[in-house]
Amino acid sequence: MTTTPTIPTIAVSMGDPGGIGPEVLVKTLADPARRAGARFVIHGSSQALHAAAEVCDLEPFWWRVDASSPDEIVASAAHHDCLLLDDDTEHQPPFAAAHTKRGGELSFRWVERAIAQARRPDTDPLKAHAIVTGPISKEAWGLAGRGQYPGHTELLASRFKAKRVGMMFEGPSLRVILATAHLPLMDVRNVLTIGRVFDTIELGAEGCRAMGVKRPKIAVCGLNPHAGEGGLLGDEETRLIEPAIELAVRQGLDVTGPHPADTVFNHAAGGRYDLVVAMYHDQGLIPVKLLARDSSVNVTVGLPIVRTSPDHGTAFDIAGRGIAEEGSMTHAIELAIKTLDRRVSPTSSDPLVEGKTTRPRA
Amino acid sequence: MTTTPTIPTIAVSMGDPGGIGPEVLVKTLADPARRAGARFVIHGSSQALHAAAEVCDLEPFWWRVDASSPDEIVASAAHHDCLLLDDDTEHQPPFAAAHTKRGGELSFRWVERAIAQARRPDTDPLKAHAIVTGPISKEAWGLAGRGQYPGHTELLASRFKAKRVGMMFEGPSLRVILATAHLPLMDVRNVLTIGRVFDTIELGAEGCRAMGVKRPKIAVCGLNPHAGEGGLLGDEETRLIEPAIELAVRQGLDVTGPHPADTVFNHAAGGRYDLVVAMYHDQGLIPVKLLARDSSVNVTVGLPIVRTSPDHGTAFDIAGRGIAEEGSMTHAIELAIKTLDRRVSPTSSDPLVEGKTTRPRA
Repeated sequence: MTTTPTIPTIAVSMGDPGGIGPEVLVKTLADPARRAGARFVIHGSSQALHAAAEVCDLEPFWWRVDASSPDEIVASAAHHDCLLLDDDTEHQPPFAAAHTKRGGELSFRWVERAIAQARRPDTDPLKAHAIVTGPISKEAWGLAGRGQYPGHTELLASRFKAKRVGMMFEGPSLRVILATAHLPLMDVRNVLTIGRVFDTIELGAEGCRAMGVKRPKIAVCGLNPHAGEGGLLGDEETRLIEPAIELAVRQGLDVTGPHPADTVFNHAAGGRYDLVVAMYHDQGLIPVKLLARDSSVNVTVGLPIVRTSPDHGTAFDIAGRGIAEEGSMTHAIELAIKTLDRRVSPTSSDPLVEGKTTRPRA
Repeated sequence: MTTTPTIPTIAVSMGDPGGIGPEVLVKTLADPARRAGARFVIHGSSQALHAAAEVCDLEPFWWRVDASSPDEIVASAAHHDCLLLDDDTEHQPPFAAAHTKRGGELSFRWVERAIAQARRPDTDPLKAHAIVTGPISKEAWGLAGRGQYPGHTELLASRFKAKRVGMMFEGPSLRVILATAHLPLMDVRNVLTIGRVFDTIELGAEGCRAMGVKRPKIAVCGLNPHAGEGGLLGDEETRLIEPAIELAVRQGLDVTGPHPADTVFNHAAGGRYDLVVAMYHDQGLIPVKLLARDSSVNVTVGLPIVRTSPDHGTAFDIAGRGIAEEGSMTHAIELAIKTLDRRVSPTSSDPLVEGKTTRPRA
């Protein structure tokens, strides 16, 4: 893609200002080496970022610009590798480490701005090529009247008018995509269809290729215990999952299953598969988080831009104390840069390009 | 309990003769040191056990007795540390590594015999104090007309007329009990009640105490993503799980939750909890199997006897080749012996007695 510049621009939304988002962001980007691969535009609160830098004993490294001054933004972007765009007009009270309407309004607005930046034309100097999002509180979004979006993924899908998107998680030894995500577990029956499972398999294959795995080996989980035990413990495997797998195989994808969920992740982490397709949130995220220990990354597949985020929440219980681990945010930013790099040079010599067998088990 | 003899008797059902049950049993008990802590009575097929010993290159170590000759059994038990009780009357065809009616009939019969042995009076010389079960095929039980029992646990509960039983799993760094187990995932809504969750918490506490944890710290999972995210993603947490936890706390138990399932297992494996109460099969078994790597043990809590089993299935795909890992069966037998030892001397000096903080993370 010749329109991608050598140094891409990454729009970062800070997440809920009362959560650990500002802190993990400061810890990650304070290192100039981490900022070398891209130009960063943080959409957030200067006050929250300063507070996070102070509690982490780090020097400010960003250049604050008023979000409502486009000319100033463009002028500053030429001279600084990290801009902070905010609209704090005066001294505000500190942000509470809790689900608040104010935190919800601001964090929602910052994501909207990051999206707007990514939707600028390719020729625009401020065009963002990737979005990295800090953790938000869904309850705070609800308080702010934004409860119609269960999370970032749904908002991004809506704004980019994406036909279908997938939530994928990338950890050191395991890559997982979810067929369903933020809905009550017992409602899975109302949304799981052959098409949904098939779309998730196909999106997962697309996501693997974007990360450099040319011909991914994909394992699909069953929904029920023991993958339904041959129909004795539920029929979703035979009714929905098997037909979707057959369709994917006919499309030329390397897909097997449905596999019992309580053993397939061991096999995947051991190198047998490049991707596991999980049927619901906890089925996929329990193993991702157990194996990754705070270093896995959430990737949205199916958008016209690259989007990554840490896989943790706002962690209000430890916010503001300087103790949050930044590993997942660091990996999210690194993965965004790597994925953009691959778009520029698809013949990358990254060892991951040939598949995950080169990756040691965590 | 003064009626427990110094050397307990353990009844072992071989599991499906076409699966890996005979092989993991032979590999475990071939070592005389492993047989030192108990007298073993294997209910199974002499032919299958010989075949397993041959493929594993091990010498037979058991004494075969006809299951229909009580006098011969009693006489042999006085002189041998491992009996094999079978009723093979003549040469039979080898067992197929597949779900078969014959495998189902036999494996069901062997469990029934182990149960009958455990139900003998305390004064009976053949009384079994613990049952260890090899893996069976539920499909084979179905072919044999025993489909009304989804597994060992349900059969044991029925035969011992247990008011309530719990499926608990013990691994090197994690202990889990299931509120529901072998049913279609979408049917969890039909069986999960406040009472069911409470009973599982109480059974789990009982199981922990049997394993030497005097005052277990117990974490209860939510059912929904993010434990329902404050009601946004399902109401089972507020309707069913929270009231059960409150009731358990009022009973004096050390219980917290509902916790998001995608983070609580990290905390438990790190030593924060002695037990996690999972709401359904895969929620509990994905982390157990990921962390245990073939060494976790299934324990039935709520029976008048000790019952353990390996946590894996028949693994027909690798059966008969001598390559199955015996770790889980070995731990199942060791845990049964340890639990019986504790019943004899509750002031055991086992380091696990004071809780799991002494156990390193796997």
